This record gives sequence, structure tokens and C-alpha cells, in this order.
Amino acid sequence: MTEIPSATDIERIESFKKVFRRHPAGVAVITGLTPEGRPVGFTASSVSSLAAVPPLLSFNMARVSTAWPAVEGTDHLLVHMLGAHNKDLAIRMAGRSDERFTGDHWSPGPRGLPLLDDVPAWMLGRVVERLRVANNAVIVVQVEEGELGEEDEGLVYFERRYHRMGPEL
Amino acid sequence: MTEIPSATDIERIESFKKVFRRHPAGVAVITGLTPEGRPVGFTASSVSSLAAVPPLLSFNMARVSTAWPAVEGTDHLLVHMLGAHNKDLAIRMAGRSDERFTGDHWSPGPRGLPLLDDVPAWMLGRVVERLRVANNAVIVVQVEEGELGEEDEGLVYFERRYHRMGPEL
Repeated sequence: MTEIPSATDIERIESFKKVFRRHPAGVAVITGLTPEGRPVGFTASSVSSLAAVPPLLSFNMARVSTAWPAVEGTDHLLVHMLGAHNKDLAIRMAGRSDERFTGDHWSPGPRGLPLLDDVPAWMLGRVVERLRVANNAVIVVQVEEGELGEEDEGLVYFERRYHRMGPEL
Repeated sequence: MTEIPSATDIERIESFKKVFRRHPAGVAVITGLTPEGRPVGFTASSVSSLAAVPPLLSFNMARVSTAWPAVEGTDHLLVHMLGAHNKDLAIRMAGRSDERFTGDHWSPGPRGLPLLDDVPAWMLGRVVERLRVANNAVIVVQVEEGELGEEDEGLVYFERRYHRMGPEL
């Protein structure tokens, strides 16, 4: 039996979406390999620090994502933090999944994982928790190594578009 | 036996902190009541959408936080999303814990929870998951009701300071 959502439910869902569209977020790209060794990845606006000692971060994803088999079935992922000059990369890695690794913007990195070029920072992480909630999951990763690249201006996702950082308040 | 962190460990921790200082984040304030009914709350830069149907969000916190007893021991919380005009509120709710509820910037809201005045949006949520990892926790909340206030410019936390949103890229 499928429940038909009430008008109140629909209104609540629309309000919830609106609230998060207007909540600024930093932008990252997660990449991994499926158990068969195929590169997968996606743009994420939910990467957050959980602890510094040990270095832990979390992100959220849908379990219908093309990257879910890599997150469910393998232990390591790369987390790339994006800067203002990476806008096109952010758009590409949120676009058609069969076009995300077409091109020379990446190469095999640590553990053979897809490493994106020219990002301000990347981290190799081991998945330590996969918390399934409804059709989604919260993933917790412990960072094992990483590299800082050139500093860049921050990249902010807001109202479904990419923005620069503004002045300090 | 306490392990002494190696130079490599210290370097890794410092790099991790630097990466997240430079990862822009939206700003929210979580409030709750301890089991004894005392208001507690804190500024959070980790509030992320997890699903829209049902409306779920996540945030991260330290289990040494003064708000942890409220999150551990009670079922409902308020999540307030902050805008650019709420900078002082963000600073106050990240400051001395005995001064966060001194003043008339809040009043008892749904279920008696501390409701902050003059925010762009607030949501009442029921805690559905508490994932403990090291000394921290990932909290998942299902939104039950909420209210949109006046729209405001986005508020972004970056390099340990508060910023406005910048122009679209």
C-alpha cells in the first residue's frame, strides 16, 4: 500500500527543500571504485568535519546513487575539496554519470582511486561507518593521508548555484 | 597507556584542520532541553540535508558539549538556520555556555524548547539516530514542523570567521 502524501506533507517537504536551498554549503567531490574496479564519483555539499583527533569527516548520500556500490562494497574513498576555480568540475561530477570520468581531468591515485587534478585539497579516507536511514546513508570516513594543493577562494553552493565567498561580516 | 602522537600524526591533524577551516559552511543553531529542563544550544556548521522524503537532516557534535545531555536524553530539538543578520547570535551561541540563554533573544517554543527570535527558518525535529564515533556523534533528525521567517542573505563560516555570500560564478 502506497500512502498518498497529504497537502500538509507536500507543503512540509517543499518548505524543507527551500530551507536547504538557502543554507550555504561548501563543495566536495567523492570518488571511489566499484567492487569491479569502475571509477564512480559525485559532487557533495554535505562534507563536514566530525573530529580532528582522529581526523574524521562525514557526508550524506542517496543509496540510489551510482556511487553507492563503491561506498557499500569497498573500504577506501577519495574526498576532494573544491575551490572557486573548480566550478566546472563540480558541475561535471553532478551531471550525467557516464560522462564524469570521460576526459583527462583525473588519473589513478592512492590505491588506484580516481584522483581529480587541480583541487585545493584531497584526502584518502577509510570508511568507518555506513548509517542507513530510509533510502539514504550517512558515511563516516577516517582520513589516512592527503595533500594540500594551491590555495583558492572558497566555492559555495546556494540556491542551486555556485558562488564565490563574500566579504567578512 | 597514552599514545604519544608522532610528528606525522600532528602534521596530518593540522592539515585536516586547515582543510576544514577553508571549507565554507552554512550556520545553524541547535537548541534543546536537558532531561532536567535546562535550555542548552550551540552553533553548528555541519547541518546538512539527508533526505527530503521523509525530511531528514544530520549534524555533528562533540559528546563533551554542554548540549550532549539534551541530545542523548531527550527526543526533540529545534534547528535554527541563520542568515547574515544573525552573526551576533551565531557568536553568542558559540561562546560561554552560561551566557547563551541570558537575554530576551529566545522564548519557549514547540514542546517548550528554546526558540530563537528572528531567524530565517526553524525546524522542530525528532532525533532518529545517534551514531557515536570516537568522542563525537552524528545526529539524524526527522523534521516534524517548522516555520519560514523573513528571507535573509546567506551566512557563511570560513577561516573561523563569518562572511556574506559572494556573487554567482
